Amino acid sequence: MLNTQNSHEAREIIRAGEYCGYTTGAAKQNVQGNLIILPKEYAIEFAAFCHRNPKPCPVIGMGTPGDPCLNYTLGDIDIRTDLPKYKVFRFGELVDEPTNINSYWRSDLVVFVLGCSLSFELPLLDAGFQLPHIEKGTIVPMYITNITCNPAGRFQGPMVVSMRSFPKNRVDEVVKITSQFPFVHGGPVHVGDPTAIGIKDLYQPDWGESPDSLSLDHVPMFWACGVTPQVIIQTAKPSLCITHSPGCMLITDLLNKDLSIS
Amino acid sequence: MLNTQNSHEAREIIRAGEYCGYTTGAAKQNVQGNLIILPKEYAIEFAAFCHRNPKPCPVIGMGTPGDPCLNYTLGDIDIRTDLPKYKVFRFGELVDEPTNINSYWRSDLVVFVLGCSLSFELPLLDAGFQLPHIEKGTIVPMYITNITCNPAGRFQGPMVVSMRSFPKNRVDEVVKITSQFPFVHGGPVHVGDPTAIGIKDLYQPDWGESPDSLSLDHVPMFWACGVTPQVIIQTAKPSLCITHSPGCMLITDLLNKDLSIS
Repeated sequence: MLNTQNSHEAREIIRAGEYCGYTTGAAKQNVQGNLIILPKEYAIEFAAFCHRNPKPCPVIGMGTPGDPCLNYTLGDIDIRTDLPKYKVFRFGELVDEPTNINSYWRSDLVVFVLGCSLSFELPLLDAGFQLPHIEKGTIVPMYITNITCNPAGRFQGPMVVSMRSFPKNRVDEVVKITSQFPFVHGGPVHVGDPTAIGIKDLYQPDWGESPDSLSLDHVPMFWACGVTPQVIIQTAKPSLCITHSPGCMLITDLLNKDLSIS
Repeated sequence: MLNTQNSHEAREIIRAGEYCGYTTGAAKQNVQGNLIILPKEYAIEFAAFCHRNPKPCPVIGMGTPGDPCLNYTLGDIDIRTDLPKYKVFRFGELVDEPTNINSYWRSDLVVFVLGCSLSFELPLLDAGFQLPHIEKGTIVPMYITNITCNPAGRFQGPMVVSMRSFPKNRVDEVVKITSQFPFVHGGPVHVGDPTAIGIKDLYQPDWGESPDSLSLDHVPMFWACGVTPQVIIQTAKPSLCITHSPGCMLITDLLNKDLSIS
């Protein structure tokens, strides 16, 4: 585990190639971001896609063609070296999982950083809610839904959601807390019956761990998920796409509380 | 004056070429937007510029290359015909002021629609504040400041602000109301002494009408202004840029209250 609460120090360790594991638990007050890098040829359509689908695709940082730095918004970042592990896709196929992308960098690549639900899970924990996947160190269950994203050029497809269950009498409180974070998925897109959004079996997620049986006083709540853009991009099969490796996020200088609108 | 409160009807009249004047007063509950169209070659840098400068450049709609429609977010819009009047710039020089841009449309053009302060002026009026420029039908005073925008590639330069003055004892209230509208410039960027942000003479604005002498119990308040991206773009001198003509805005189906986070 990356054992520092300082975002600069965390990135220095990663940049030096001394850590290539999960970022969970490091710099807990700081926003961790999902990474997506695309050639300029696809970038404007992807920017439009994100703008039209802000819940699954909340952009917190954006680069210009060929610029690997994000100093103006997220900190003193070199995107080529500052994540522990990357995934490189060509035409939708995984071709490499490097710990830096120096050799892949090109003058036409554009960086997108999207917010992730870690930023609203901490306030939920602070408010006394239980999040079993965090306690057990597993991954939240995620599902493909029948909710269609607003298309933008070559990028189109269904929304992926993550599920967390909460006591029925505290749903309003959970909605309120997470709605305060519109830049990290915001309030839930659905509460209750999974079949209403096309999820046939709550216990067979498309990604992540199957949840424990829901007790009768609990209700499933669904949030737009950062896996959505990854699925959409795989379907569009761009000539090149580089993402973070799951769990190996970009640690930014932004504070979670900076993303709250309260 | 365009005499309808229905956004569809307003656009139909404009689309038919029957109205080419100001949109002020039409469809008052609806969001009116600033238009900027750029070739794909510049669009991704401009998208990054807007993302890094959300106060002067709040994007409320974005197209994909060659697509003149914005149905997914702003309504049944054809951007080539649905504004009363446009300005066409080549390499920063104004070359035409047409009432439609059918003959200028190309497969590489990308549409951006930015929010405008009309959306927060109405809630101020509703709260009983006076806005002399609206009462007199003049244009709010605007100034170039010494606040530098976060650059993005070829787009860089100073922030332009608009000024409205309010009673000193109601500043907090004005801040609170306008901060509820982060997608239409949000809260003020500065309150008080104009020289602190590089404005030498409050009574000699760079655009708009000179304000009346401020009474002693009033304080000037400054908001990031939608003229900023126009100034930035003129400086970058792109091969082609099409904007709305001042006051001749895009009337969208979005409601002003949809842009409030309260």
